[in-house]
Amino acid sequence: MNITEAIEKVKPHLTVKRFEHTLRVADTAVKLAKRYDASQTKAELAAILHDYAKYRSLDEMERWIRKSTLPKDLLDYHHELWHGPVGAILIEREFGIRDKEIQSAVHYHTTGKAGMSILDKIIFLADYIEPGRSFPGINDVRKKAEQDLTHACLMASKNTITYLISKNTTVYPDSFHAYNDLTRQIIGGSSLHEK
Amino acid sequence: MNITEAIEKVKPHLTVKRFEHTLRVADTAVKLAKRYDASQTKAELAAILHDYAKYRSLDEMERWIRKSTLPKDLLDYHHELWHGPVGAILIEREFGIRDKEIQSAVHYHTTGKAGMSILDKIIFLADYIEPGRSFPGINDVRKKAEQDLTHACLMASKNTITYLISKNTTVYPDSFHAYNDLTRQIIGGSSLHEK
Repeated sequence: MNITEAIEKVKPHLTVKRFEHTLRVADTAVKLAKRYDASQTKAELAAILHDYAKYRSLDEMERWIRKSTLPKDLLDYHHELWHGPVGAILIEREFGIRDKEIQSAVHYHTTGKAGMSILDKIIFLADYIEPGRSFPGINDVRKKAEQDLTHACLMASKNTITYLISKNTTVYPDSFHAYNDLTRQIIGGSSLHEK
Repeated sequence: MNITEAIEKVKPHLTVKRFEHTLRVADTAVKLAKRYDASQTKAELAAILHDYAKYRSLDEMERWIRKSTLPKDLLDYHHELWHGPVGAILIEREFGIRDKEIQSAVHYHTTGKAGMSILDKIIFLADYIEPGRSFPGINDVRKKAEQDLTHACLMASKNTITYLISKNTTVYPDSFHAYNDLTRQIIGGSSLHEK
């Protein structure tokens, strides 16, 4: 599936605002892929697809979680967390996309996870810093994104978890695993190769 | 083992400051046990014992973690987290204390866990709010501790995790599980029986 086809397939499933967000995520993801020597094609495709399941009904998403190999504990957390994992399944079922890197980037774009690939990090970060976003501290994350992909992901992860905790919202375990893993990578200096 | 014996056994293993902290935790724990209708004897004993392993050498604590049934992933996290779990084992090995409620309260006093018992909560909270402590926001937690044990634990959990994240420190998964579980209890209102 090429980018033009993906855009045509995804567009009818999104609101206008969400589609514009998707295009900005794709633009940001391509820039990050260039900067960090990843596949620009995969980054663009994963970005176009990342919110594909965003507007499926809760019933449909719940059915996919129940009948697939997706972790059932997703159902114990906010349904905002469902569209990434469900999207990773739907792009295979409906578009035949079996590229595990792209599926993983779509799956984990909201939470992150321990052991994120470069593509996982690019989509996670692009979704957070695309130019339409405004969170407290986002410009610091945007600056860091030009220098250190992993460190920028850690900043996004910290901001997100701290925000959720301040709002008394449960936090999906993968978000915590991502935070711990990214923290270890930065403290251990193992992200130096990205600098 | 009665309280006097426990104090005699524990005192030589602690610094003077840590021993005074222990007595304040015991005093606070007894007050919480009265307030929330838990065993004052168990609360006092668990409090006296909670830091028993605090000054064991890292080598000794690591050996206990490796040769016991304790989770090995403790070794991947800060050694400050080891003395609770190791203490729960040592009080059985050295004092014959096999009371699972007391052992659990000692084990999880630093991190908490999902599914904390009332005694777990009392020791976790008493260690956080005893009168010698001063953290940002602690007086709010002390006030809440008079009204709702679970909610006060949630506040302590939130403060601790947010502090650790602000310091780029990894967070042991049980701390996150405690936060999510306490959040569910408060949002679901299931802690009403404690009010």
